[in-house]
Amino acid sequence: MIGAECLLRTLVAHGVDTCFMNPGTSEMQFVSALDKAPGMRGVLCLFEGVCSGAADGWARMRRSPAATLLHLGPGLGNALANLHNARKAFSPIVNIVGEHTTKHLEHDAPLSADIEAFARPVSGWVHTLRRPAAMAEMAAEAVRAAAGPPGQVATLIIPADYSWSEAGEPAPVSARALAPRVPDQAIRNAAILIGSGQSVGLLIGGSAVRGPALAAAGRLAAATGVRVHLSRDAARLERGAGMFSPPRLAYFPEHAEPQLAGLQHLILVESKPPVSFFGYPTSRSFLAPTDCQVHILAPIGSDGTAALEALAAECGAAQVAVPVPAPAEAHPVAPGQLTLEAIGAVIATHLPQGAIVSDEMVSSAEPISRALLAAAPHDHLPVTGGSIGQGLPVALGAAIACPDRKVVALEADGSGMYTLQALWTMAREKADVVTVIFANRRYRILDVEMKRTGANGFGPAANAMLDIGNPDLNWVQLAEAQGVEASRAETAEAFATQFESAMRQKGPRLIEAAID
Amino acid sequence: MIGAECLLRTLVAHGVDTCFMNPGTSEMQFVSALDKAPGMRGVLCLFEGVCSGAADGWARMRRSPAATLLHLGPGLGNALANLHNARKAFSPIVNIVGEHTTKHLEHDAPLSADIEAFARPVSGWVHTLRRPAAMAEMAAEAVRAAAGPPGQVATLIIPADYSWSEAGEPAPVSARALAPRVPDQAIRNAAILIGSGQSVGLLIGGSAVRGPALAAAGRLAAATGVRVHLSRDAARLERGAGMFSPPRLAYFPEHAEPQLAGLQHLILVESKPPVSFFGYPTSRSFLAPTDCQVHILAPIGSDGTAALEALAAECGAAQVAVPVPAPAEAHPVAPGQLTLEAIGAVIATHLPQGAIVSDEMVSSAEPISRALLAAAPHDHLPVTGGSIGQGLPVALGAAIACPDRKVVALEADGSGMYTLQALWTMAREKADVVTVIFANRRYRILDVEMKRTGANGFGPAANAMLDIGNPDLNWVQLAEAQGVEASRAETAEAFATQFESAMRQKGPRLIEAAID
Repeated sequence: MIGAECLLRTLVAHGVDTCFMNPGTSEMQFVSALDKAPGMRGVLCLFEGVCSGAADGWARMRRSPAATLLHLGPGLGNALANLHNARKAFSPIVNIVGEHTTKHLEHDAPLSADIEAFARPVSGWVHTLRRPAAMAEMAAEAVRAAAGPPGQVATLIIPADYSWSEAGEPAPVSARALAPRVPDQAIRNAAILIGSGQSVGLLIGGSAVRGPALAAAGRLAAATGVRVHLSRDAARLERGAGMFSPPRLAYFPEHAEPQLAGLQHLILVESKPPVSFFGYPTSRSFLAPTDCQVHILAPIGSDGTAALEALAAECGAAQVAVPVPAPAEAHPVAPGQLTLEAIGAVIATHLPQGAIVSDEMVSSAEPISRALLAAAPHDHLPVTGGSIGQGLPVALGAAIACPDRKVVALEADGSGMYTLQALWTMAREKADVVTVIFANRRYRILDVEMKRTGANGFGPAANAMLDIGNPDLNWVQLAEAQGVEASRAETAEAFATQFESAMRQKGPRLIEAAID
Repeated sequence: MIGAECLLRTLVAHGVDTCFMNPGTSEMQFVSALDKAPGMRGVLCLFEGVCSGAADGWARMRRSPAATLLHLGPGLGNALANLHNARKAFSPIVNIVGEHTTKHLEHDAPLSADIEAFARPVSGWVHTLRRPAAMAEMAAEAVRAAAGPPGQVATLIIPADYSWSEAGEPAPVSARALAPRVPDQAIRNAAILIGSGQSVGLLIGGSAVRGPALAAAGRLAAATGVRVHLSRDAARLERGAGMFSPPRLAYFPEHAEPQLAGLQHLILVESKPPVSFFGYPTSRSFLAPTDCQVHILAPIGSDGTAALEALAAECGAAQVAVPVPAPAEAHPVAPGQLTLEAIGAVIATHLPQGAIVSDEMVSSAEPISRALLAAAPHDHLPVTGGSIGQGLPVALGAAIACPDRKVVALEADGSGMYTLQALWTMAREKADVVTVIFANRRYRILDVEMKRTGANGFGPAANAMLDIGNPDLNWVQLAEAQGVEASRAETAEAFATQFESAMRQKGPRLIEAAID
């Protein structure tokens, strides 16, 4: 069969059955093959950053790769920012990038570019196909490379003529690698530390911030006094009322350092060492105390869940009651100003069990995240790589991955503008996503960051560069223009009414929350 | 003075007085310095692809660099697609990209990435500052590198702490390099070829598609019969009624090959050899006849204008009448269906002299471009690198560069969606840009490309990937939501009325032209 069909069939056989795409000429054979090779769902996006962010959201929920289909170097270029986030989230993604025909490559055509160079900064695996007969083998290899563990971005670059050339049969499916188990000795060493009477902390990420791992961490905390924090690298947190809900490490170093203060040992479980987001003139980058020893119990990509369960058992914390947050009480919203606290209370009350929250709230994050601890148990998908424009695409991808679960995108207005085209695909795919835009009409976080970098006081020219309220963005129109039902809430009671009704309906909706 | 102020003052001293920016934490000192170092205009964009496209538009009109200010690797990533176009346009651009503080770099922070690797595929010059005291020298070097000739993208990466460190005084201004003159012998050789009786063509680009160069090419064509074509690489064409207006090389090879058929010699003036946009199963990439000899008269970056003038003189074509297109006759528009021909006639009639046309019409390009030959003399800015999402940002940058000239952005609906955030900056800056959206609600060009790649007939799944009309995009709302006055035209007479009134007013406006 021709290369494009062989590629599609190999991807589907390996469990890659969804492709977020923005194709061009070099990818037309792939698109055409959608009707010949059954089992692949094509999801059209109007901008490539939506494709890559959606693939990230999909991967976080399914823990297996989706594909993207991108057009040459510039198409991949547009996808890079959200691929950066996916890289930091250890999300498995298979990028299929079309290249010029092999004969056309020698000419310096307008779209000629070094596609591998575009791919490398975000990809753990990059390969340009060298002959059509290798299509199946390399497609299977791309899926394997992406799947990990840990997951990573794999980019397969395919000259257009290999898509229409004879390429043989799809590759047979091979077994997927399992996360390696942590050696028993490492468990015993950690238990000795915890039992030593010294001050010990656990920093957990990866798979260890969900389900049984989280429960084991909770028992450890309750039984031994070990202090547990969630890594900011963690890409998918299970949280909510009735669950052990340790605090995430704070964004700013002056808030994070007190969280880790006094620790003599910090044990990492599927987490990097704790560092601040940015470096500043007067603060340290490493967030644990200078004399704190860092120990790796479960490296990233290993089975941190089994490690935590074994550690809890080793520490005798098998059967212990764990303090958990109580559910939010449903009481009428106090009418009046739409504060973040009011928004948080409404969301916490009405978020359905099993919801997925895509979080790109930026300066609005702290009070809302606090309130969400009292919401029904849900998955929380934060920004991992600091690249802006993740929230809406990740929500889209999560909704495609989990069609039976409500997705709530909590999105800052400045951030939402980077990839607002995600709304169109939500409408097209009838994705069950309710987007809340925190419309403060300012790059508010930069007001804070400006002062932190030592730029004391800023004049009108600088001020204007942080002001996105001139002119105002009308998010209701931006959503409706792309087929998404939308409304604006300027009071707490309006927001409550709109959010409650949005939780009861299916399909995409947007609420512009007017905050200060 | 501190690094950020030194950088700003050096840029301004070297003529870089406009910066299209989307800053973050690492760039706050630069933003703050806008109020301390006079002469730099900051233009805020809500997405980095708008910054880079606007800098390209600026550079095409001013022929000197504007700056962009971008936030770490991902911010640069979002700018890459339009930087690819700028690279192919030989547009001088200075990217200033913030990096983490030098002490923070050793930690694997969320935004850590290989910024130089992001920059290289699109930049002719990349440098990461290694000490604050080198700020002025390297900023000056970046401007020199960008300016060329030929122009190129120069990327200067600046660790955040160097922005707040003492960096000394701004660099003194050095003389700008001039485009080298073509040797007399090359002129004489070309003249001999033209006088040889063989069939000779001229393919002109760069500065040679404007003003005196174009006039000289016209005299050469009229006096000697040499066949003149415009290179598709040319980034800024002067065209219109009363001017010598040779045809551009066509987009598809089967249209371009006949244009060059029969040529025994093709002389390049600031142009690459002619190649098709894509390679296809059944066509050649090189567009001139197989046995046609290609000669370089004026390399890219050299003074092609002087070369053409000298060549015209050498060929005795100094005083010769040149056939030129006649101006469009202003006659009432035939009411009824809004065809491309109707749109072209309206634009040709009402486009004011000295207008700037940013062209990303894609599948609508041919009839409109033909009609524009009868418009008043204007600058035409086409897509150079094939990366989608150029049209609106280039229009924005051209309008900032030339505030006294009317800018008309002719934009396909699919392409417009990649960088629609440009509309907001047009509103904010009161840029005098009238955008016409060709709304056929389809990636129409891909209908053609699909067949050309040999994918015969496509089924419903493939068809859906080319259909951007489900749901329909409402461009009036997309524009109004960002502060741009907008209307939709569904008939020829409605379009005529709206376009005519738009030409009479100042400031941003958008017309959604409903075409099939």
